[in-house]
Amino acid sequence: MGFSQRLFDALQARSSALVVGIDPHLQWLPGPAPRTLDEAGERVVRYFTRVIELVADDVIAVKLQLACFEALGVPGWTAYQQLIAVARAHGLLVIADAKRGDIGSTATAYARAHLASELLPGVANPLRADALTVNPLLGSDSLAPLLDVARAEQAGLFCLVKTSNPGSSEIQDLKLSSGEPLYQRLADIVAAWGAQDRDESGYSLVGAVTGATHPALANVLRSRLANVPLLLPGIGAQGASPADLASWFDRDGLGAIVPAARAIAFAWREGPYATTETHWESAVSTAARSLRESIERVRRSSQSKD
Amino acid sequence: MGFSQRLFDALQARSSALVVGIDPHLQWLPGPAPRTLDEAGERVVRYFTRVIELVADDVIAVKLQLACFEALGVPGWTAYQQLIAVARAHGLLVIADAKRGDIGSTATAYARAHLASELLPGVANPLRADALTVNPLLGSDSLAPLLDVARAEQAGLFCLVKTSNPGSSEIQDLKLSSGEPLYQRLADIVAAWGAQDRDESGYSLVGAVTGATHPALANVLRSRLANVPLLLPGIGAQGASPADLASWFDRDGLGAIVPAARAIAFAWREGPYATTETHWESAVSTAARSLRESIERVRRSSQSKD
Repeated sequence: MGFSQRLFDALQARSSALVVGIDPHLQWLPGPAPRTLDEAGERVVRYFTRVIELVADDVIAVKLQLACFEALGVPGWTAYQQLIAVARAHGLLVIADAKRGDIGSTATAYARAHLASELLPGVANPLRADALTVNPLLGSDSLAPLLDVARAEQAGLFCLVKTSNPGSSEIQDLKLSSGEPLYQRLADIVAAWGAQDRDESGYSLVGAVTGATHPALANVLRSRLANVPLLLPGIGAQGASPADLASWFDRDGLGAIVPAARAIAFAWREGPYATTETHWESAVSTAARSLRESIERVRRSSQSKD
Repeated sequence: MGFSQRLFDALQARSSALVVGIDPHLQWLPGPAPRTLDEAGERVVRYFTRVIELVADDVIAVKLQLACFEALGVPGWTAYQQLIAVARAHGLLVIADAKRGDIGSTATAYARAHLASELLPGVANPLRADALTVNPLLGSDSLAPLLDVARAEQAGLFCLVKTSNPGSSEIQDLKLSSGEPLYQRLADIVAAWGAQDRDESGYSLVGAVTGATHPALANVLRSRLANVPLLLPGIGAQGASPADLASWFDRDGLGAIVPAARAIAFAWREGPYATTETHWESAVSTAARSLRESIERVRRSSQSKD
């Protein structure tokens, strides 16, 4: 079954568009600072295993932030693999937030690393995710090898189009000679890349990253990305709220998913559910449930608006 | 000492602008296919340790292709660390070709992973490189955290401006409303990002990736990137030849370095030095020496042309 079909089946079955982001910055973990990388990796696995258990009924996927694992060296990659296994054991989809982008055989290597079932013949891939975030700046040469692997593995890609950060305007908003900003052209390119690869859901295996921090762009991007699943970062620490999500879903209330990292996994540290370290677990589960419900209200209203 | 100063000191001292690219695609290694990831990692270390020994006098740096290591899972990262140590033991600079790009605390995590001396207080970073390739699509928010770490660690960055692949035209050549192609604006943005961070060499710690496959762009990009060190991929398998390098160096014959991966490390497989597997070592050392000398002729003529 295609990635988009799996994703939106899960969304409908579990009534949730929420994805828990796993960004293991050590300085945000409870308890004393780890003294070795092995200890750091174990702490990350222990904390986020519990986070996944706490939120598993409220989310449909985990989005793992590769940078944080990479910053722990080899033990970080071991932790990464372990958390993928934990997420799968809870029936969750896995999105590798790696923003990779390179060309030719190098792009194939990234695709195989993150999406292939096997790394060598007969050797299962413990890093395998259901989808990978990718950067389109290098053009089709960089996308084609990823697409080949994703197609073969029934996996998905989320390609950067308009990112959630304030500085995204610097390059992504550059005005082209045609009069449109670069992100609109990127949207058209991304839509074209995936046009041949729609699954049973009607959605392509090539998705797009479009920041929920730009609600004013939702209508134009949703229509240019008609059959493209959207990953909408920016809820919580980056300033977007569930109300900003209204126009990103399609008329069936599908077509988009919403990651939240700090707002769930570190809800006890700041924001409406901030509490003491000893009560971190209830803050995490309350934050996930509340956010899921807020998003559901918006999603259902977008469903009924037509 | 700043990264650019270290880089161009080495270039002058060793009379070489050549960088050996380490792209361990398993299917290109001599001998039977490995059966486990540990075996694959060991094979990669053994082969490329010998490659580094063979070419150490002809190159100033190694450029490690992260994708290939990532595609070997945890044993790949162990191999990556070991090859960094081998390169350093031969007095070579290390460039991590990772093309990372993300925002805020995530960008900081990538910067720390690849450029920080320590991953935890008192825990040395076995992944530490001297420079990292990065993708600018997310704007200054993504560059600022990398710049902070690079500055503190006397490290360098090479930011994608105009990549070597044919498909680079699809997005990087899009014409802006100002009339210039996107890559020219990227060049100006990259030059501005590094303007405050020039070291003793006069060059910035923020470099640029500009494909040697685009010799017609050398003059305009070299002048827009006046104090920016250039990484010039595309020699060999991608079709550029040393003659294409003439206009990329500055009037002192500095300011640019030239990576070659397959054309050196796999010279025995195809091209002018192709030979049988048993003679691979002499093909590798001959290819490196010959390529270094070809580049030196071009570099010296660019030096004398003013």
